[in-house]
Amino acid sequence: MNITEYSKDVSIKRTVDQGTSEQRKAVEGIISRVRREKDTALAELTEQFDGARLDTLKVSQSEMDAAYKNVDDETLAILREAKENITRFHGRQQRQSWMTTEEDGTILGQKITPLDAVGVYVPGGRASYPSTILMNVLPAQVAGVERIVMVSPPQADGTLNDVVLVTACELGVKEIYKVGGAQAVAALAYGTETIAPVDKIVGPGNIYVALAKQLVYGTVDIDMFAGPSEIVVLADSTARPDYIAADMLSQAEHDPMASAVLVTPDLTLAEQVAKEVYEQLETLPKKDIAEASIRDYGAIYVTRDMNEALDAVNELAPEHLEVQTESPFELLGAIRHAGAIFVGENSSEPVGDYFAGPNHVLPTNGTARFSSPLNVDDFTKKSSILFYSKTSAQRHGAKIAAFARLEGLEAHARAVEKRLEEKEHDNENE
Amino acid sequence: MNITEYSKDVSIKRTVDQGTSEQRKAVEGIISRVRREKDTALAELTEQFDGARLDTLKVSQSEMDAAYKNVDDETLAILREAKENITRFHGRQQRQSWMTTEEDGTILGQKITPLDAVGVYVPGGRASYPSTILMNVLPAQVAGVERIVMVSPPQADGTLNDVVLVTACELGVKEIYKVGGAQAVAALAYGTETIAPVDKIVGPGNIYVALAKQLVYGTVDIDMFAGPSEIVVLADSTARPDYIAADMLSQAEHDPMASAVLVTPDLTLAEQVAKEVYEQLETLPKKDIAEASIRDYGAIYVTRDMNEALDAVNELAPEHLEVQTESPFELLGAIRHAGAIFVGENSSEPVGDYFAGPNHVLPTNGTARFSSPLNVDDFTKKSSILFYSKTSAQRHGAKIAAFARLEGLEAHARAVEKRLEEKEHDNENE
Repeated sequence: MNITEYSKDVSIKRTVDQGTSEQRKAVEGIISRVRREKDTALAELTEQFDGARLDTLKVSQSEMDAAYKNVDDETLAILREAKENITRFHGRQQRQSWMTTEEDGTILGQKITPLDAVGVYVPGGRASYPSTILMNVLPAQVAGVERIVMVSPPQADGTLNDVVLVTACELGVKEIYKVGGAQAVAALAYGTETIAPVDKIVGPGNIYVALAKQLVYGTVDIDMFAGPSEIVVLADSTARPDYIAADMLSQAEHDPMASAVLVTPDLTLAEQVAKEVYEQLETLPKKDIAEASIRDYGAIYVTRDMNEALDAVNELAPEHLEVQTESPFELLGAIRHAGAIFVGENSSEPVGDYFAGPNHVLPTNGTARFSSPLNVDDFTKKSSILFYSKTSAQRHGAKIAAFARLEGLEAHARAVEKRLEEKEHDNENE
Repeated sequence: MNITEYSKDVSIKRTVDQGTSEQRKAVEGIISRVRREKDTALAELTEQFDGARLDTLKVSQSEMDAAYKNVDDETLAILREAKENITRFHGRQQRQSWMTTEEDGTILGQKITPLDAVGVYVPGGRASYPSTILMNVLPAQVAGVERIVMVSPPQADGTLNDVVLVTACELGVKEIYKVGGAQAVAALAYGTETIAPVDKIVGPGNIYVALAKQLVYGTVDIDMFAGPSEIVVLADSTARPDYIAADMLSQAEHDPMASAVLVTPDLTLAEQVAKEVYEQLETLPKKDIAEASIRDYGAIYVTRDMNEALDAVNELAPEHLEVQTESPFELLGAIRHAGAIFVGENSSEPVGDYFAGPNHVLPTNGTARFSSPLNVDDFTKKSSILFYSKTSAQRHGAKIAAFARLEGLEAHARAVEKRLEEKEHDNENE
């Protein structure tokens, strides 16, 4: 991890796996097979990829009940508290339909409607990711989505992880299918005998899942294409190097391609953080991953002053930004591009990953310039409402017809002018 | 245009031009050429495609002043009134940043920030499309976007349409470039010596423009991939066949692939509308286009009752929906999927295309199931704000660390636990 003087040309090194053309072809093949053979394809592909022979895709109530026996009370209490915090935060994002009325009878408005059905992909494997369920399901529930479907690849013995099942159950998710990979995405987009199609698919997955989501986009909506996770720490001489190093390593342990960057005007801090990172790295269970990440994607940029440091942050547009400075709130207004801003030395990133309330699904790869954390809006859509009374149609009709003709659209003009014709036409046809 | 009994299998016939592989290759070539040769490429491609040799890409103040001489006062007044209506409607969409505070010092919030820079593509050609400028620029301005760049292909004499220039000028758009096609999109995404890059590109264009937007997506944000325009009219026996026919034809004149559909439980109305459509068609200047659209993409579905008609509407999820029934507001709650809902017989679609206030950029091709009209949110992004005090970090740290370990992320757990260490560490390094 080099300490470099910051210049405009410097950026976060980012490598996003876009998949190979072989992977894309394989995914295309899986999708068309699922569209053709539906449940049969799901069963065969699940046996092929997950080694599980399943009689039924859907998780039963007794499986859910059994899962509770293997989750201790302490874990359950933490999951429930996290659920409450996340629900409360996202509840603040809810919006109302609205309308305006005018004296001539005109009514204009915007109707907010939840999506009908959402599919949530939850990765399988040895580890359990209850936070994926909380962060993807809860905003959809807050939005009012009636049907939420969860899919996750089974283990070879045909089961799902107990914590995953319990978390889903705590959230009231009833429709859970043991299917993963591109085949799960295809089933959610196009439907099978067992799985009715959804309107949007969210949740993280490997490159096959990501490619499948891209390919079904348009038929259904998807969440963003996520790159590797990244953190930028903005710090001054008052910051604690051990905190910063620990936070950078918590990002680095995710993925060899994850990136952790420190931006500071303080060279001494820069040197201390570099030292701390290598010291703390030694005892990490995921040392190999974190070490590769720090080596290949870690960076420390030293700026002339705090203003240049803020420029650097906006240039980098990080997924996670920690502000560990003397007066962090003072800088909030100057930060234009960041998915989530962790303010002050006690707000380490993991606080937001699981528990505090804000979503952990955040824009990566510099897309914080124009994208947002996953939020309740993502599970609703707007419809414009437009009502013209006879009076408003008569008052504005000629102007609207003139505008239409300006654009060369005569039939548009005539449609408006039809409403201007004599009143005796009101209840008969011409 | 057949009159068909409605069944679930019936749908809007939709054909979306996705481009050929030759077109895609051509666009890829143009994009990489613009990235390499920048302004030089723009000049050469503009000469090649638009037949215009330009000394300078940027529209000058004197060109804008001159354009005013060719736009009459009546047109100017209509443009200004439309601008006011659209600005007022979109002003209602503005949102505030918010935060919550808790007694232990925790602060959570959501910061709304406008995008830095947006590019608006305005098609060229003989016709002028001032409504494109109004509908794409005004929401960005309401959102607070500081830099708005307009691009439009020049005519062979090197000029832009006068109405287009005047409309841009009325909106205060200062940065207008005479460049179109895939090369304009590439310039907006990657920048040239003259054109600084933007964060998002919006606005309609031909297939080359659409493909270019798809290809630069990720580097910048884009608006939706628009299919041909479509209208569904939901009507009962109280509706006027001549109004419905006129509105269907105003959609049909756009494009041979545009679609106009009537859904009604009333067979008599269905027959009257069919007759009216063919009668009104006869005298339209764009008869050929409208006739092809009605023949290939027009449809009338007769349903058992109004409930089935509402099911049909939700199944079709149209871009534009007109509700011409006895009590149209009664049905508003049952309509789940539509880009814009025109309520009552006087609310013909052109009212919303130009003038009333709601946006005319709407989700096509069934995507109203999960997409929204262009709106102010599209030109802002959210950042989560998260502040934990020493107290909140101490209170929740152990739980967050336990959650991290549940997901197998030890470095995450340690980052949180660092904040739980003894207070004497506060101002020193370990």
